[in-house]
Amino acid sequence: MLQSQPRFLTLEGGEGAGKSTVLSALRDALLADGQDVVCTREPGGTPLAERIREVLLGVGDEPMDAHAELLLMFAARAQHVTQVIRPALARGAWVICDRFTDSSYAYQGAARGLDTAFIAALERGAVGIVPGLTLLLDLDVASARARTRGRDLLGESAPDRIESERDAFFEHVRMGFRERATREPERFRVLDASLRAEQVAANAVAALADYRKQWS
Amino acid sequence: MLQSQPRFLTLEGGEGAGKSTVLSALRDALLADGQDVVCTREPGGTPLAERIREVLLGVGDEPMDAHAELLLMFAARAQHVTQVIRPALARGAWVICDRFTDSSYAYQGAARGLDTAFIAALERGAVGIVPGLTLLLDLDVASARARTRGRDLLGESAPDRIESERDAFFEHVRMGFRERATREPERFRVLDASLRAEQVAANAVAALADYRKQWS
Repeated sequence: MLQSQPRFLTLEGGEGAGKSTVLSALRDALLADGQDVVCTREPGGTPLAERIREVLLGVGDEPMDAHAELLLMFAARAQHVTQVIRPALARGAWVICDRFTDSSYAYQGAARGLDTAFIAALERGAVGIVPGLTLLLDLDVASARARTRGRDLLGESAPDRIESERDAFFEHVRMGFRERATREPERFRVLDASLRAEQVAANAVAALADYRKQWS
Repeated sequence: MLQSQPRFLTLEGGEGAGKSTVLSALRDALLADGQDVVCTREPGGTPLAERIREVLLGVGDEPMDAHAELLLMFAARAQHVTQVIRPALARGAWVICDRFTDSSYAYQGAARGLDTAFIAALERGAVGIVPGLTLLLDLDVASARARTRGRDLLGESAPDRIESERDAFFEHVRMGFRERATREPERFRVLDASLRAEQVAANAVAALADYRKQWS
């Protein structure tokens, strides 16, 4: 069974879309309102899940089977939900998570072509919760590449195994996210991530305020 | 879809049941007959799957979510099937594997109480193959403990995260395996693993010879 969690917010979108800046802005807005906030990320979010992340994103000689990738993502997610997300929600905190199940539908489903019904079975069987609000930071692939290339040149980080995929892969990822948003307009807000970072963050904070008005 | 693979043999049973000795005997019997044989084990069997094994069996401070454990097992299995087992079967080799999907039904299903239908969905969605013959080395928990304790005292290996479970856990594992064997009598041969190791190995070799007669 899947349960929607009103205080569970997720950010989705490719690399370079500005999720970190938006996450900080949302956290600050909630803290300024006196709320308890937990910020986390996937894959990872617990020491054990971070070890799974290392296996997932490490660049090795052995090609990773697409189902193995999918199952590692969900293993890390199950651990993260049990250890971090559910306990935080249970005590009344807000949880803001950088990536969640929608990323599996976009990356392993839309881009790698794995069966969506199988992903849905994993979501029901091993995750069980759905965010109340998901902000999709939508950005065209060329702009995202330009931003992450800037980061790489600054030596901030080398591209990991998934970041090393070709443009066609990221086009499918983007389409996968947009299709998810179209199917669940109640849960998703799509933000134009080609704007200046401060503007994107302001739009995200406005979307959260709007969302909170609905159930106050 | 699940496909039975006639040249795919698996050994199941708890620690201390003598799977290693039996595996060597089966391999030698097939090699003596001029067959191509690949011996492997789970979780593991490829460099990447062995890294997942380390995450799975490592003793850490953070309790592992049961679904995370199940999904890590299946992630390692998907990788192993794609990289090692399917290619070997495709070229006509025999594959003998120490543990396979039945272990997930016994350990994560029967012993940890996870939903069998969910395990079956993982088997269909991410594994797709079933061994033609599975030898279950059946041994009571007290005898298995006595044997593994002997190994531990010899300093051969410290108990891993799963070996550190209580006796009641292993009683459930044993019952889980026996129930699998009862449900699929065509595929399973149950061997009395309380006999001397040489006798168990001889019985395993006889069971394989009997199995091969069926389709020659």
